[in-house]
Amino acid sequence: MTFIRNAWYVAAWDQEVDRSPLARTICGTPMMFYRRLDRRVVAMRDACPHRLLPLSMGIREGDSIRCLYHGLKLGPNGMAEEMPLKDDRVVPGLCAETYVVAEKHRFVWVWVGEKERADEALIPDLWPCSAEGWVFDGGYSHVKCDYRLMIDNLMDLTHETHVHSGSIGQPELMEAPITTHVEGDRVIVTRWMAGIDAPPFWRGALKQEGPVDRWQICQFIPPSNVIIDVGVAPVAAGATIEKHDQGVRGFVIDSMTPESEGSMHYFWGMARSFDIDDVGFTGRFKRQQGGVFAEDVVVLEAQQRSMLANPDLKLRAFNIDQGGVRARQIIDRIVRAQMEEQA
Amino acid sequence: MTFIRNAWYVAAWDQEVDRSPLARTICGTPMMFYRRLDRRVVAMRDACPHRLLPLSMGIREGDSIRCLYHGLKLGPNGMAEEMPLKDDRVVPGLCAETYVVAEKHRFVWVWVGEKERADEALIPDLWPCSAEGWVFDGGYSHVKCDYRLMIDNLMDLTHETHVHSGSIGQPELMEAPITTHVEGDRVIVTRWMAGIDAPPFWRGALKQEGPVDRWQICQFIPPSNVIIDVGVAPVAAGATIEKHDQGVRGFVIDSMTPESEGSMHYFWGMARSFDIDDVGFTGRFKRQQGGVFAEDVVVLEAQQRSMLANPDLKLRAFNIDQGGVRARQIIDRIVRAQMEEQA
Amino acid sequence: MTFIRNAWYVAAWDQEVDRSPLARTICGTPMMFYRRLDRRVVAMRDACPHRLLPLSMGIREGDSIRCLYHGLKLGPNGMAEEMPLKDDRVVPGLCAETYVVAEKHRFVWVWVGEKERADEALIPDLWPCSAEGWVFDGGYSHVKCDYRLMIDNLMDLTHETHVHSGSIGQPELMEAPITTHVEGDRVIVTRWMAGIDAPPFWRGALKQEGPVDRWQICQFIPPSNVIIDVGVAPVAAGATIEKHDQGVRGFVIDSMTPESEGSMHYFWGMARSFDIDDVGFTGRFKRQQGGVFAEDVVVLEAQQRSMLANPDLKLRAFNIDQGGVRARQIIDRIVRAQMEEQA
Repeated sequence: MTFIRNAWYVAAWDQEVDRSPLARTICGTPMMFYRRLDRRVVAMRDACPHRLLPLSMGIREGDSIRCLYHGLKLGPNGMAEEMPLKDDRVVPGLCAETYVVAEKHRFVWVWVGEKERADEALIPDLWPCSAEGWVFDGGYSHVKCDYRLMIDNLMDLTHETHVHSGSIGQPELMEAPITTHVEGDRVIVTRWMAGIDAPPFWRGALKQEGPVDRWQICQFIPPSNVIIDVGVAPVAAGATIEKHDQGVRGFVIDSMTPESEGSMHYFWGMARSFDIDDVGFTGRFKRQQGGVFAEDVVVLEAQQRSMLANPDLKLRAFNIDQGGVRARQIIDRIVRAQMEEQA
Repeated sequence: MTFIRNAWYVAAWDQEVDRSPLARTICGTPMMFYRRLDRRVVAMRDACPHRLLPLSMGIREGDSIRCLYHGLKLGPNGMAEEMPLKDDRVVPGLCAETYVVAEKHRFVWVWVGEKERADEALIPDLWPCSAEGWVFDGGYSHVKCDYRLMIDNLMDLTHETHVHSGSIGQPELMEAPITTHVEGDRVIVTRWMAGIDAPPFWRGALKQEGPVDRWQICQFIPPSNVIIDVGVAPVAAGATIEKHDQGVRGFVIDSMTPESEGSMHYFWGMARSFDIDDVGFTGRFKRQQGGVFAEDVVVLEAQQRSMLANPDLKLRAFNIDQGGVRARQIIDRIVRAQMEEQA
Repeated sequence: MTFIRNAWYVAAWDQEVDRSPLARTICGTPMMFYRRLDRRVVAMRDACPHRLLPLSMGIREGDSIRCLYHGLKLGPNGMAEEMPLKDDRVVPGLCAETYVVAEKHRFVWVWVGEKERADEALIPDLWPCSAEGWVFDGGYSHVKCDYRLMIDNLMDLTHETHVHSGSIGQPELMEAPITTHVEGDRVIVTRWMAGIDAPPFWRGALKQEGPVDRWQICQFIPPSNVIIDVGVAPVAAGATIEKHDQGVRGFVIDSMTPESEGSMHYFWGMARSFDIDDVGFTGRFKRQQGGVFAEDVVVLEAQQRSMLANPDLKLRAFNIDQGGVRARQIIDRIVRAQMEEQA
């Protein structure tokens, strides 16, 4: 088992879930998601308790779902409401498993472990995704790799130089020192570039001349989120690692939800507090970011295949990999604790 | 093992088998079928006893088959007749396994178990498929599901309302009571609708006004056949469950031959004793029936995948499923007896 | 294990390997090949020792290869030369495995076993592929079958009559006697056709009338090469099995390199000492030979699938199969010796 179970995972973008069911397998469990008339989200095992046909093939009736095969009708709490033959007495206790869901920061989150432990306060605080004065948009990709390979990828931005040489890669990134530290269950990798010339993207956002301080602060938040605080501020503004909202700032948001041991759902986006009324900027940036992440998908799927084709070889970690190494240690520790508790 | 072995299975429609070999895997065994000059059907293991190339790739010579690879020639009894080098003495006993076949009711049947037990009297009596005064036609589909899922499907016609809502489904079907009973190795599910208004299809066939009695009598016959006696008769004719040939009547014929544990060959058709000279009717009905069964294929393949994706869940049976439940009990009993006998 | 490991295998045609890496899995090991500036060939495990991304996706820099993911740079000896962060000290001993390669007879050969045993003198002597006065050309096919099925195929040319009935097959081939003998690790199957009428192909090559002696001498050379000495000479010239270069002569060259237990790389060609300045002949012959071998691929892949579908059946050997049988005995003996040595 490589997944943390008692945790919130992003199941979908809020706009992906509507009245018609959306099928998505989360941590090995087929689930389906739809909205009630009051827009609250229902998450249910994607298998009719009668003959296991995926409920996502069914028809929604009011807040209930009716299986396409024999017409068993289940309420949004998963409980059977009507048998295939209307007059038949509903079998007591007949139901599909449901899952605790929450909607926050533009995502639908699902708790895959023990229901009684689900606490919305444990949802990762992706505040830039929903704060006033911020704009957030992004996309979704299905990736055929272990979700931890994507965490490794994001916790070490040196790969940008090579994988993204045609887009965001810049040789200077390789020269700036990074520091990695752990705070509780979080891992923070910081790269602070003081008094440099701003690259074109940030120069355009900042809309003023002169040397800047630039930062990239990657933060791993269990079970599988990485948010990257990025931006620049004029040197004169005196930005520091502790406080750096003097210039232009954004957050790259990445949430990696395991589908199986060898595949994942990738939710990515960018939240920003500059040019927030420029809708064209949002669309252009999302297109560009989608292109960049497509480059990562090619690499990660090749890496996954190579791991299977070279079973005698092990992944090695260098200094640049400290972020990923620490994140995996935290995942391993939580998974192990979970297993011990169950045993 | 989920197959009955000492039994006749439909291997093909009669018109599917001709002088060129037809390859088809039956109950896990690759077989091939062709007709001798006198039109009798040969069934042989689809692997040359020399280097295992499928014999179905070979060339038929008279009643024999010559392997495409090295030219070993086998007679219709499977015995080697000529070695790759013509002058080489034929190896004594060299042969491909053959299977007992019979042709009846428009189908080619194969006995997959112990040859000495093959008895044509055991072929299911699908008399409407070959009786005088009856017309029979139908089709073939390959379906990626356990053959027992299709038996479940056919022994419970309540699914028509939902799966076939655009074609043959009718809400009234859900309201008519059904009875299930077992007679020896057969299961019979009866739905008798007395004094109702005939639906358009049957009204057209009957060609007269007034209330009718309508019936649907599903019968499971091992190892894996379901025939459904359907029709209507004017109320005044006094039809009964025991005797109901006063009006218009047909039989839906379904034979499910296992290919593997997770796939099957589906032979379906309709025999009727009305409008038998209307060739256009036959063609139109076959097209319609093909469309209806294609809807079942979508559902059954999704059900098969869902069973694999949800290994912790079990199929549940309600009242409507009694037909399928009884049929599976009979299959299980025969398979178990078979295994005990072998041990 | 069905492969001999301490042996030279053809990895590629010489012209397939250039400055950009070529990925090819040899005996189950993913490898990649490229040429140094001095044209010498490098063979390396196709997985970066850092995070296992295939090195064949990387960028060559001078004689070194830089991984596309994080930019680890490896020299042609596999040793790390530069870390992802340029200033980081190179981890001592960090390297990708390399393999001993040699270039001979127009092929790139790789030694997959213990390096210290690699001796170029052990490369099969395919002298017609590189001798003065000879022309050699051919092609490559990926085949989804156990490499030993192709050896069986080539060591028994009676299959030509059936598989290649539309091209090179001739019934007379079936009538000429063959002899099989073993010389050390080699198997030689000889078919000598004395005083026959030359077929059109050889008549055209010989450019004179009258009866000829014709020969086909198949030779298996471990680990998995078959070369076939073919040609005709006027009867008056007195050709013998021992000495037969009086007429026109060619060698069909076949090298079967295992990719996995169920797939192989097929390198095939024809070396000839007649019409050597006729470039058109070379092209036409290569096209024809490619077509003939494509017929074999269809048969061998069907045979491989049939072996898996009929696990209860075994390959049988007749007289015509003696060449293949002896070749497999030699392979088995060497593999067994190898395993005993390791144990």
